[in-house]
Amino acid sequence: MTDQSSHATLMARRSRTLGPAYRHFYDAPLHPVRGQGVRLYDAEGRAYLDAYNNVPSVGHCHPRVVEALAAQAAELNTHTRYIHPKIVEYGERLTALFDPALSQVMFTCTGSEANDLALRVVRAVTGGTGIIVTSNAYHGVTADLAELSPSLGAANPLGAHVRTVAPPSGVDGGASFAAEVRTAIASLQAAGLRPAALLFDTVFASDGVYLDPPGCVAGAVAAIREAGGLFIADEVQAGLARVGSHMWAYERHGVVPDIVTLGKPLGAGHPLAAMVIRPDLLAEFGAKTRYFNTFGGNPVSAAVGLAVLDVIRDEGLQENADSVGRALQDGLATLAQRHPEVVAEVRGTGLYAAVELRGAPGTAGQGISWLLNDMRRRGVLLGSCGSHGQALKIRPPLPFGEDDLAELLTALDEGLSQDGLCHILGA
Amino acid sequence: MTDQSSHATLMARRSRTLGPAYRHFYDAPLHPVRGQGVRLYDAEGRAYLDAYNNVPSVGHCHPRVVEALAAQAAELNTHTRYIHPKIVEYGERLTALFDPALSQVMFTCTGSEANDLALRVVRAVTGGTGIIVTSNAYHGVTADLAELSPSLGAANPLGAHVRTVAPPSGVDGGASFAAEVRTAIASLQAAGLRPAALLFDTVFASDGVYLDPPGCVAGAVAAIREAGGLFIADEVQAGLARVGSHMWAYERHGVVPDIVTLGKPLGAGHPLAAMVIRPDLLAEFGAKTRYFNTFGGNPVSAAVGLAVLDVIRDEGLQENADSVGRALQDGLATLAQRHPEVVAEVRGTGLYAAVELRGAPGTAGQGISWLLNDMRRRGVLLGSCGSHGQALKIRPPLPFGEDDLAELLTALDEGLSQDGLCHILGA
Repeated sequence: MTDQSSHATLMARRSRTLGPAYRHFYDAPLHPVRGQGVRLYDAEGRAYLDAYNNVPSVGHCHPRVVEALAAQAAELNTHTRYIHPKIVEYGERLTALFDPALSQVMFTCTGSEANDLALRVVRAVTGGTGIIVTSNAYHGVTADLAELSPSLGAANPLGAHVRTVAPPSGVDGGASFAAEVRTAIASLQAAGLRPAALLFDTVFASDGVYLDPPGCVAGAVAAIREAGGLFIADEVQAGLARVGSHMWAYERHGVVPDIVTLGKPLGAGHPLAAMVIRPDLLAEFGAKTRYFNTFGGNPVSAAVGLAVLDVIRDEGLQENADSVGRALQDGLATLAQRHPEVVAEVRGTGLYAAVELRGAPGTAGQGISWLLNDMRRRGVLLGSCGSHGQALKIRPPLPFGEDDLAELLTALDEGLSQDGLCHILGA
Repeated sequence: MTDQSSHATLMARRSRTLGPAYRHFYDAPLHPVRGQGVRLYDAEGRAYLDAYNNVPSVGHCHPRVVEALAAQAAELNTHTRYIHPKIVEYGERLTALFDPALSQVMFTCTGSEANDLALRVVRAVTGGTGIIVTSNAYHGVTADLAELSPSLGAANPLGAHVRTVAPPSGVDGGASFAAEVRTAIASLQAAGLRPAALLFDTVFASDGVYLDPPGCVAGAVAAIREAGGLFIADEVQAGLARVGSHMWAYERHGVVPDIVTLGKPLGAGHPLAAMVIRPDLLAEFGAKTRYFNTFGGNPVSAAVGLAVLDVIRDEGLQENADSVGRALQDGLATLAQRHPEVVAEVRGTGLYAAVELRGAPGTAGQGISWLLNDMRRRGVLLGSCGSHGQALKIRPPLPFGEDDLAELLTALDEGLSQDGLCHILGA
């Protein structure tokens, strides 16, 4: 059987067994067989530069993480109803990375479970039900989270208790964001709904990546608190050293959340997620409710989480995200100047960036789709964001180096120069 | 520092960092440091016979599972938006274990996520919202599932769209179960709610373990279908060879569910869960909704899932569950005859059993609590079930052998003979 027919057979089997709800990236789906550092390798041995995946936070298949995983899995893997020092040690190491007010943690397997738990807590504590999210937010896959994740599209209608606001954008974004949140609060109250929480991804990733200016979320956070609600910072995508200047993206804004949810990068691929929280909030929830997550915080996931923190510290990955991240943002600004006919704006901080194309969002979205496939052919993996996928999403593993960056920028420079892209955008 | 003070220090640190929502088993919490087969070992080197944990389905730290986990984690760990043969292979191997009508599968990390997804599907497909569960059901930790898990207690009120029914019990349990479901359907309809699904754990574990007579759920399943709803079989606890006679507990009743949810034992401790479903149902859901679970079905979890299936097949664990399970049920029946003053009833099939104590449920619950701690001192780990924890839950890893069973029955015979227990029960 040729490689091509074997690939087609695999795709047919995949479709037959996994059904229609699964999607794949690229017109020609990627079929990696090996990963190392910031590279994925396909079955033909071709290397791809991974400038997309944040889950393998410390790099694909990091040997220290794999070793910690294998060693603990061979020794003991139970659950939190028995006592184990590693979950306590990991909890202490993790909460030590936060403001002292955020001193307790509960473990789940996924960011969805962490956000879902945070919703249960804010409802129990505030007595309210109203939730405010951004206009293209994504917070997870549970039924409750689908109701407040407008990015899932019209097939998942928003709940009657949900209001959306535009993310902060532009130099006076903070004022407009706060004003939108106040309007949303008034709308909830007018409907007889008590506001429970303002919940947003602290880099507004699915909205299109909005990080500036620093401090721009403070007014909105103050507004929800004045209304008796809480602020949940969704750091599932943003967190764990990626913004470089800080461990968590919310710190850039000088605010302290009431609850922080964590996921994707924590376990570098192992299903590990968490909710970090003020003890006074958890006291009320935990006193009346037991919460047991079968796999959450088991010794294996704790061992993995500890190894990830060790690697970030020992390899200086936050410092790397800061320095290479600055170079990334500078490089993208230069590319925007070189390609003014196709690039509308670049945004980002550290190793999180968006490159928005010109034109109506739908057209720009088609342009990004074309560009992602073009970049894949060039051996560089990227993603998209924004309500119409109109911006390139750049979000590499944290050990992304200067040489990797040079390779990315060169490929992107070529991709942005192609007639095919200009043709789509009418540029 | 003495062992005892170090233990107390760990407990204090645990409480300070993890907060009040975490519980632990036993008056003297167990602190295992190593697991192998059906044994856990504590820090002092003492062995405990594990007759409780179903998650380490093929035994604690099975070397073939650990090897598969470590090898795949070292090679590649990405997600389902790239193509990988192992998820397809695992999906095919898993669905091959079901009726041909149940030919598609979607992967999640936890049984909660699987049940939550099933709810999203039945709502989308039926257009209804009404859900019928049993009176002490537990289906998971998400906000949506907490609303239909009465076993979580009064702090988690049931949703207005939820109705409860008593599990089938006794020789005419099938007729009463069907009648209860019909009444629940009528109640939903009277409230203007269209029934979406009947959802139950196919061994009714949290209700107290009810498996007999075979076929007793058929009338209820027919009733929900007549009303336009679907039947979701929650096999998160029950499934994967445990009942011995069949791979899945629902098969014992001669019914074919519309959706089956799977969790705990699938990954033998690795966070792996799934929803197995009729393709016509998934077609409708998948056509309008994308569903992406970041870690669900990644190459590592697929490799682990495949290894678990291999071990079950190669070590004859279903056959073991059948033969040792029969001996377990016989042995418990004998114990019930020997201790008629304390044992009210024994129920179960294969390696799933309940021993219900005499007396009012609250008193029996205190008796079980006493017995669990007594058995822990004897080196045997067990759990409880029922609305007041009034029944002993016996649910060992699948490689539970005849010698292990003899040890369990001897210890239980002694435990049931103690004056302390008789005193609590007033026997």
